[in-house]
Amino acid sequence: MTEKLIFLTPGPSELYFTVEDHLKIAFREHLLSISHRSAQFQEVVTHTTQELRKLMNIPDNFYIVFTASATEVWERIMENLVEKTSFHFINGTFSKRFYDTAIALDRKSTQITSELGQGFDLEKVTIPDEAEVIGLALNETSTGVAMPLEQITELRATYPEKLIAVDAVSAVPFPALDFNQIDTLFFSVQKCFGLPAGLGVWIFNERCVEKAQKLIQKQSIGFHHSIPSFIKQADKNQTPCTPNMLNIFLLGKVAEDMNRYGIENIRRDINYKSALLYHALENSSKFEIFVKNSNFQSKTVVVADVLSGDNSEFLSVCREKGLVVGTGYGSAKKSQIRIANFPAHSKETIEKLVDIIQNY
Amino acid sequence: MTEKLIFLTPGPSELYFTVEDHLKIAFREHLLSISHRSAQFQEVVTHTTQELRKLMNIPDNFYIVFTASATEVWERIMENLVEKTSFHFINGTFSKRFYDTAIALDRKSTQITSELGQGFDLEKVTIPDEAEVIGLALNETSTGVAMPLEQITELRATYPEKLIAVDAVSAVPFPALDFNQIDTLFFSVQKCFGLPAGLGVWIFNERCVEKAQKLIQKQSIGFHHSIPSFIKQADKNQTPCTPNMLNIFLLGKVAEDMNRYGIENIRRDINYKSALLYHALENSSKFEIFVKNSNFQSKTVVVADVLSGDNSEFLSVCREKGLVVGTGYGSAKKSQIRIANFPAHSKETIEKLVDIIQNY
Repeated sequence: MTEKLIFLTPGPSELYFTVEDHLKIAFREHLLSISHRSAQFQEVVTHTTQELRKLMNIPDNFYIVFTASATEVWERIMENLVEKTSFHFINGTFSKRFYDTAIALDRKSTQITSELGQGFDLEKVTIPDEAEVIGLALNETSTGVAMPLEQITELRATYPEKLIAVDAVSAVPFPALDFNQIDTLFFSVQKCFGLPAGLGVWIFNERCVEKAQKLIQKQSIGFHHSIPSFIKQADKNQTPCTPNMLNIFLLGKVAEDMNRYGIENIRRDINYKSALLYHALENSSKFEIFVKNSNFQSKTVVVADVLSGDNSEFLSVCREKGLVVGTGYGSAKKSQIRIANFPAHSKETIEKLVDIIQNY
Repeated sequence: MTEKLIFLTPGPSELYFTVEDHLKIAFREHLLSISHRSAQFQEVVTHTTQELRKLMNIPDNFYIVFTASATEVWERIMENLVEKTSFHFINGTFSKRFYDTAIALDRKSTQITSELGQGFDLEKVTIPDEAEVIGLALNETSTGVAMPLEQITELRATYPEKLIAVDAVSAVPFPALDFNQIDTLFFSVQKCFGLPAGLGVWIFNERCVEKAQKLIQKQSIGFHHSIPSFIKQADKNQTPCTPNMLNIFLLGKVAEDMNRYGIENIRRDINYKSALLYHALENSSKFEIFVKNSNFQSKTVVVADVLSGDNSEFLSVCREKGLVVGTGYGSAKKSQIRIANFPAHSKETIEKLVDIIQNY
């Protein structure tokens, strides 16, 4: 007998309500056996990109392509968009790894690192003239620190010549991001989209295409997943190699479901649920909200310190009630909890968790 | 109403008989929501690599790791194993693309190209002293040309210092390959394993690890999917980033099913079915077997020229009877047929197709 559990872990996480039904359709329509070069699969790619464009308000001058993971995109951005150096805002493990990728790929990149749990004061940040790309995490999954959209707008105004690259893992489609303020954005589908892991989505504009085309004259920019290779296939609604076709299909179907429900409703729900969570944590004597400044508090990944002992007892209590809450990340694995607040998490589920926090 | 169809296309292809049941288990056991760092998922990785090791007789000194595709591995081999130059046996589109990857990644690689539909006469091939890696396709999916295992043994004896890299897409687990004759091998799971697309398997030995560790002293070898990054995680039965967890689980389950049936039985079935197919094509006045020399005829991807007109009428006849046969590849798209003969294709299915060929 298998337990009935709801996953509030920050990814992989609870599947979106409709995934299992869509999977049945995928089987029935032979989507797992057809050619990735078939007209039927081209329609799947078209559908998925159209639904994402609508849901996230992605302008027509942005390409939407598919990778194996967001991790892969860190490398592809370096290969395709950075000849010598990039600049990175680091406020946790994942934004640091974007920078680490640059260094491993022999770029002379630089960075600014915030105190853990804190955001950045842009007035105190100077980005070197040589930096070709500015890398930042919209929502740092390891610490629950979000970057306010106004800061991205400010960066755009201050550094109009630089490409702005946004790690949007565990954030999209929640933030009402204006794509005109950025040049490239990427995410993986096992967070807010509530899908099985194994697919990254990479979105980039014409400025990125131009940069890659300039770079390829000077140095290798990779091969099958380079920007020129992606756009050659994307123009035909195809992919450079046989991709995770099932996940591309599921992503389109879930984005369609989300469009049907409405992005404003999704945002309202997430705001409501995050308010409940932060309120409960604020009033609990057992926890302390990790990100103190509410401007930087993530709405989709809520992180709290456990005030005495470690998180094991609380996680057990939750699990007994069928809820799997996330541990802290890295060195905070035992001292913190992380609660995912994604579209797949119903108000009832969050209210149930809030009850547990209040009675703990 | 959706048609009931059986896919005899050379990948993506018919799903292995048990995939749908395993998928139900994956849902029930929350495999699509658990952390990729959890003990539960470590057990999945352990199970999958153990079952593959048994099925393919992979020695203990080989690592088994997971990528997004076989296409990705072409790049990873160049980054990790080739400082300056490799040598490639090209007998179709995919073996050529392995070479193209080398060139795109600025390696000064060389190659020998066979006439289409033909194998190689190793006595006429001289591999440059400088070549660090020999790349070859065990089964060229575009043309149905197989490389006999004896030729690999011969290459090993002649060039013991070079690393031998085997593209085994659409071949394994059929050939009784001796891993001691090679250094690295890779495949994707949507061919002979009958799984949804979106996972590559990369197998490499200690010589490859040593080469990568030497190379990293001199140049970038990539980051998250470099050999050092893979083995650091593989030693813990983990993966460098959140992988296609569902497919890793399904691969282990299908490999277990295949082990239960027995690799010798799988080989016997494939031999039997390929004999039926080649016999029917040989005796048909409408087709001509593309690979004339039986030493080089693939048992898993059977390719034939259509003698008059194109393949559309034959493909329609098959489809009316519920069988989806593959077109030719590239410029032969209309003039050839390709028939997959994988473990998922039952004797009854192949016998039905043979009947159609005989009565056509």
